[in-house]
Amino acid sequence: MTTTAPLRIDLNADLGEGFGVWRLGDDDALLGLVTSANVACGFHAGDPVTMRRVCAGAVAAGVAIGAQVSYRDLVGFGRRFIDVAADELTADVLYQLAALDGIARTAGAGVRYVKPHGALYNAVVGHERQAWAVVDAVVAYDRSLPVLGLPGSALLRLAAAEGLTAVAEGFADRGYTAAGTLVPRSEPGALVTDEAAVVERAVRMATEGLVVAVDGTRVGVPVSSICLHGDSPGAVGLARAVWAALQAAGVDVVPFVR
Amino acid sequence: MTTTAPLRIDLNADLGEGFGVWRLGDDDALLGLVTSANVACGFHAGDPVTMRRVCAGAVAAGVAIGAQVSYRDLVGFGRRFIDVAADELTADVLYQLAALDGIARTAGAGVRYVKPHGALYNAVVGHERQAWAVVDAVVAYDRSLPVLGLPGSALLRLAAAEGLTAVAEGFADRGYTAAGTLVPRSEPGALVTDEAAVVERAVRMATEGLVVAVDGTRVGVPVSSICLHGDSPGAVGLARAVWAALQAAGVDVVPFVR
Amino acid sequence: MTTTAPLRIDLNADLGEGFGVWRLGDDDALLGLVTSANVACGFHAGDPVTMRRVCAGAVAAGVAIGAQVSYRDLVGFGRRFIDVAADELTADVLYQLAALDGIARTAGAGVRYVKPHGALYNAVVGHERQAWAVVDAVVAYDRSLPVLGLPGSALLRLAAAEGLTAVAEGFADRGYTAAGTLVPRSEPGALVTDEAAVVERAVRMATEGLVVAVDGTRVGVPVSSICLHGDSPGAVGLARAVWAALQAAGVDVVPFVR
Amino acid sequence: MTTTAPLRIDLNADLGEGFGVWRLGDDDALLGLVTSANVACGFHAGDPVTMRRVCAGAVAAGVAIGAQVSYRDLVGFGRRFIDVAADELTADVLYQLAALDGIARTAGAGVRYVKPHGALYNAVVGHERQAWAVVDAVVAYDRSLPVLGLPGSALLRLAAAEGLTAVAEGFADRGYTAAGTLVPRSEPGALVTDEAAVVERAVRMATEGLVVAVDGTRVGVPVSSICLHGDSPGAVGLARAVWAALQAAGVDVVPFVR
Repeated sequence: MTTTAPLRIDLNADLGEGFGVWRLGDDDALLGLVTSANVACGFHAGDPVTMRRVCAGAVAAGVAIGAQVSYRDLVGFGRRFIDVAADELTADVLYQLAALDGIARTAGAGVRYVKPHGALYNAVVGHERQAWAVVDAVVAYDRSLPVLGLPGSALLRLAAAEGLTAVAEGFADRGYTAAGTLVPRSEPGALVTDEAAVVERAVRMATEGLVVAVDGTRVGVPVSSICLHGDSPGAVGLARAVWAALQAAGVDVVPFVR
Repeated sequence: MTTTAPLRIDLNADLGEGFGVWRLGDDDALLGLVTSANVACGFHAGDPVTMRRVCAGAVAAGVAIGAQVSYRDLVGFGRRFIDVAADELTADVLYQLAALDGIARTAGAGVRYVKPHGALYNAVVGHERQAWAVVDAVVAYDRSLPVLGLPGSALLRLAAAEGLTAVAEGFADRGYTAAGTLVPRSEPGALVTDEAAVVERAVRMATEGLVVAVDGTRVGVPVSSICLHGDSPGAVGLARAVWAALQAAGVDVVPFVR
Repeated sequence: MTTTAPLRIDLNADLGEGFGVWRLGDDDALLGLVTSANVACGFHAGDPVTMRRVCAGAVAAGVAIGAQVSYRDLVGFGRRFIDVAADELTADVLYQLAALDGIARTAGAGVRYVKPHGALYNAVVGHERQAWAVVDAVVAYDRSLPVLGLPGSALLRLAAAEGLTAVAEGFADRGYTAAGTLVPRSEPGALVTDEAAVVERAVRMATEGLVVAVDGTRVGVPVSSICLHGDSPGAVGLARAVWAALQAAGVDVVPFVR
Repeated sequence: MTTTAPLRIDLNADLGEGFGVWRLGDDDALLGLVTSANVACGFHAGDPVTMRRVCAGAVAAGVAIGAQVSYRDLVGFGRRFIDVAADELTADVLYQLAALDGIARTAGAGVRYVKPHGALYNAVVGHERQAWAVVDAVVAYDRSLPVLGLPGSALLRLAAAEGLTAVAEGFADRGYTAAGTLVPRSEPGALVTDEAAVVERAVRMATEGLVVAVDGTRVGVPVSSICLHGDSPGAVGLARAVWAALQAAGVDVVPFVR
């Protein structure tokens, strides 16, 4: 039997993560490589001028704009867990989502999905109350917006239960356990640093839906998007290599949102 | 000749000007008296939880929600002029407007108008560059949104020139010059503190479109809305007296937006 | 044998917890009743103008100034746990302590002790890493500064282990278990709301070093200070009643610092 | 006649101007070249962890630490004029100065001077009220601290009038008028971009106390310090060239504070 449906994958990365005079990552280069841009909304990074600039760039490049919502923590870049009450978190997510959506619409395209950032991303893997709070914000704002997150997370499970579109993403530069979860950063094998290996894993995720776990097992990772990191040295080069390898493998690199 | 059109006036006040645990003014009481609520958007006051609560209250009370946009200055409550560049100010206004609009829509009604707050309100009376910046934000976001401001201000002039609806407001508790401008706060007669006088002036503005200036001249002040101050002691009592006197004078107290 | 040393107790309360235009609690009234003022340092509350005013008032009233250090969280008033890394927390505490100390010295008296606020206060009861981080800041800044906290907390234990003066405080309006710990707020008996009961418990703590636990047991609570809450309705009245009852019982109400 | 006193000059630059994850300039390289570090204090840049790191580096390198005080404006990097009231500005400067001084002392050396940053630096050239506010803060905190600023500024004049040490600095990369003032940035000749020219001007300022103005006139600029900019591309290379040329010219590059 031959494959009738073309292979396709989305590439997402964090963009617009500067603040005022401070810059982080190479937004312009990444806009030429990714198909979905997780745009910072002002709570962990992203002043309004930067948000406008990145949205304009994304629209020009045909990149889907996602709201990268976060705890309110500029000095900690949203990387520190905050024990926010559910109603506060829902309101915070709603505020960020609405602000970016309005700005994105003035650039020609609204927000197309929501992805939590940093410590909030990690929290909603298992923290049911905070996961609900994020889902509640999306439900209140626009039920048609997909939520992008970790496979198996409370966030995706609760989003689906509420009737939202839950989209799973993979990490080509992270180690996986035989159970298909990420190897914790504190353990050996958590990070894949060899560029060729990362590229190979990205292609395999996109073409076979598989990853080789730390114990050598082949594990299914049915993801619609692969997350590229944009703020490390060599990030753009790696993104370019992943993009090229996917093209060469006959994979359509397109936004997961229609 | 008899008046065929019914007399009507809008009453507006600043609401939602707390932040976190801190409160300012009596939002609940004012929502029963005003017809337009200038809701703080997070830059001078107004955290997301407060914004949601005030928007829900406004919708329940049939009060129009306006975006009370400001300089980014929590510690100064937006009362200090900041020499913000035009593109930054436009982006800041857009961000605030979009955030509140999104929150207001989840409460059942979107933002209906825009009114600058504090030092920005004063700046755009004469500061053309900043006035343009505010107008640009409204034009980019939604041309159908009226701008509320001081009669004779650069803001209203430029808004009208851009095709926006420019709405003038009056102050029953401020002194006016014979030219129809406000007496500067540093000069005698700037404030009208006698409650009966304030009430009488509000009724006259609404019924005759007039105010008695500090020199005794009767001056035309063709305003569609009267601004009530909500954060001073006795503010609610005064608002209630103005509201009752307008009712007694046969004036419909209704939102200026349709 | 008769008691030769006079009975003495310190009363402490949180002061200077406004921010900009926003006020919280009645600083002036409390300065006439307490002997130690936990002054907010700008991270959960307390702008520099307020800090100067409260320090001047404390010096005039002979009240000892303590640094009420907090997580950086204005919108959450420092009441939400933040998973701050140790080096960041140490630096944050050092920054706040130094800022208040400098301001206090210009008012005529430096900071005399350190007390964590809100969620940080609760965290350092059991969170060893954060407790160490606070202790490290005090050690780095000035080893002669006492640390005020909950009896049995990691904070006081580690402070003492480092050679700092660890000072225990009691709560006349909180329920205690038979083990001498506070009844969690989620359980019955957590709060003592009857004013007469609170006053009686304060006197007993000061004169006998005892409190009656929720199960009726008499428990020793050897505290040098009693914490009064300043931001609730009736707070000042209760503080006044406690103060008067202590005087009547022959207890010297004096700062715990010399 | 022979010169009996050795030629000496101070080189100062802004350091510690990152915030959280964001970095700006190459602090480590500059610490090997300058003799005075204007360290950001948290209001326009500079989180507490960064402040500690820079202070430790400055102490290790024998570089004098100055408090680079600013308007409270992270998003604007302190580059926007804010119409702050005098008492607020005094308190803001005091807070920043005290915070940095405390941190610096834990690193082994306290703050040795005060220099306003950005828009505040420019404001206090002519804005008497704000200049007084800065001077008042230094007077309140420590009369022995010099104030570093622009020759001819209100700041230096008022500081001297109050008995403070007023220290003038020059800019080797800025054009001067025949009157010895800086050519406004909006006019031709405001910036000297040729590296060799900048180096030559720095040496001439240090050895002859002269600069060649835009009209060719030789103007006296009696400065004790030359300001190097650290955040532009090539900044470190230029700083190194200036430092080397001064050494070659027999000028001692030493802190202006003793």
